[in-house]
Amino acid sequence: MPTVTAYAAPSATEPLIKTTIERRELGPRDVLIEIKYSGICHSDIHTVRGDWGPQQYPLAPGHEIVGIVTEVGAEVTKHAVGGRAGVGCMVNSCRECEQCQKGNEQYCLNGNIGTYAAVDVDGTITQGGYTTHIVVDEDFVLRVPESIPFEAAAPLLCAGITTYSPLHHWNAGPGKKVAIVGLGGLGHMGVKFAHAMGAEVTVLSQTLKKQEDGLRLGGDHYYATSDPATFATLAGTFDLIVNTVSAQVDINAYLSLLKVDGTLVNVGAPAEPLPVAAFALLMGRRSFAGSGIGGIQETQEMLDFCAEHGIASEVEVIGADQINEAYERVLASDVRYRFVIDAATMN
Amino acid sequence: MPTVTAYAAPSATEPLIKTTIERRELGPRDVLIEIKYSGICHSDIHTVRGDWGPQQYPLAPGHEIVGIVTEVGAEVTKHAVGGRAGVGCMVNSCRECEQCQKGNEQYCLNGNIGTYAAVDVDGTITQGGYTTHIVVDEDFVLRVPESIPFEAAAPLLCAGITTYSPLHHWNAGPGKKVAIVGLGGLGHMGVKFAHAMGAEVTVLSQTLKKQEDGLRLGGDHYYATSDPATFATLAGTFDLIVNTVSAQVDINAYLSLLKVDGTLVNVGAPAEPLPVAAFALLMGRRSFAGSGIGGIQETQEMLDFCAEHGIASEVEVIGADQINEAYERVLASDVRYRFVIDAATMN
Repeated sequence: MPTVTAYAAPSATEPLIKTTIERRELGPRDVLIEIKYSGICHSDIHTVRGDWGPQQYPLAPGHEIVGIVTEVGAEVTKHAVGGRAGVGCMVNSCRECEQCQKGNEQYCLNGNIGTYAAVDVDGTITQGGYTTHIVVDEDFVLRVPESIPFEAAAPLLCAGITTYSPLHHWNAGPGKKVAIVGLGGLGHMGVKFAHAMGAEVTVLSQTLKKQEDGLRLGGDHYYATSDPATFATLAGTFDLIVNTVSAQVDINAYLSLLKVDGTLVNVGAPAEPLPVAAFALLMGRRSFAGSGIGGIQETQEMLDFCAEHGIASEVEVIGADQINEAYERVLASDVRYRFVIDAATMN
Repeated sequence: MPTVTAYAAPSATEPLIKTTIERRELGPRDVLIEIKYSGICHSDIHTVRGDWGPQQYPLAPGHEIVGIVTEVGAEVTKHAVGGRAGVGCMVNSCRECEQCQKGNEQYCLNGNIGTYAAVDVDGTITQGGYTTHIVVDEDFVLRVPESIPFEAAAPLLCAGITTYSPLHHWNAGPGKKVAIVGLGGLGHMGVKFAHAMGAEVTVLSQTLKKQEDGLRLGGDHYYATSDPATFATLAGTFDLIVNTVSAQVDINAYLSLLKVDGTLVNVGAPAEPLPVAAFALLMGRRSFAGSGIGGIQETQEMLDFCAEHGIASEVEVIGADQINEAYERVLASDVRYRFVIDAATMN
């Protein structure tokens, strides 16, 4: 089995270190990708540190992967050597259940296979994108349009699709008032997408610190949620609110900002349950919903939408030796808006 | 002003007593209804006892009203003397806001006027249906089809529309699996409606005590929620769940019974917030929603649907002197499935 350089956590409590991991031999339907950039997602930190349950180590995280196809299996038809490829949060699914058949592999009823820290079909534990190469079934490899700069494309594979999918599913578009809660890695993509879809976009951020950015990225309005007046001013305003904040928030305050028949969608899951006052839902036939990433076809549509609308992530490119420092900055919300590891610095 | 006999609460802590209340003189757009039957809704008890805030007394509750039109104002066009009339939870709304224009008077942005315990346009406090006569603007008077027995029609005006509306809004119908949580005044109507709409209906009740009834009323399946195996067996089953239980329940357990893209709709509001695990929503793009009664046109459609499908409420008719006893039985869930006061016993 090919051995490749990676940055991996040796345990839940140690920093990531330079090491090697093994990739499987190329199967007939596999694509070998030479990774160019890999985004750092908050989930990476939670997972390697064991916040979401015990893991097997060493563990290389990363599910915002872009690179170049350098080899394809004998039966591969969707990708060719030299092509620009992307890999997101999943590398396989059952492909047979009702949801897979519908293109909702993210909701695979038999459980899809995560890009890292998941049990693969061969029984091994999957390893993510903080490495130089990855081998993935062609059906779970995306085509990254030429016009999107590689480093700015990486975060689209998780932060991008996670915000695109609910905006698309709940019909953000002309005539709709959409709020994006939180202006971080996910939120800044939500603002760009909602704006490009034609909606009137309001950014709801804790403070006005990022106001200039928020408006530049596509927000029509910007409010600080630390100011109680915001909730009075905006009561009953929005058709759709996408909440990208994983921390505990006063969810009923946000529900009160919805119009009748409006929907508040969480794309992050706080550790503790959110206390929902049913009355707030009843009084306006409001919905509190959740959405997780997106399907493979939908992810391709999102990438093509980005190319068409000139959209990409705002990134800070780092060397592999800066990963641990970047983790601390992510935890401190000190990044505009996504760290991306330059895989050329791995070797 | 005409004075009529009523059963009203003299205070939050006393039983209802026979008394008199005043009705306004008939305006040009008003309808005078001689009440035949008036249903007892759990809300009546909460309201008169001050559970939902302080009230002005004496207070005659009741918002499930049917009777005969005995007089109409000069400009009335929708109703005629001798007609069978119904009045539900609202007697007026602003008629001008976006929601009123859409026929969603129940979500009137300026606040609709409740049938009792609400401030009317003339500044008086509205009095409900536990009385012999009521005067209502013709736009808020429904036509009760001839084929529905009067006593069985009364509960349709609240319990009926409250369950019909979400089933209709979230497209209960052929090919859909629908669960009704709770088999009480609301739940038994939910089962009948969902069945008549063509859905596959599952009743989720605390015990199997009412199983025979549940299946007779239109349930295809019946499960006890006190049995933990129920939640394992039915995981991921339903397109739509209508929760008619106002008590605190483990809402995440019910959310886990939804299919991908399924919706759980609360039509009751527990006093305390319900802790919702966002993860349960995320993992299947599920929604937790609320729905309150229904619009006037929709209520008429519901009544016509009942006539078409031979649907009505299961009731226990009582004399006015049994109201206080009935209240205790409602609180003990000892009624199948709705008490209806025979207004002929008022005088």
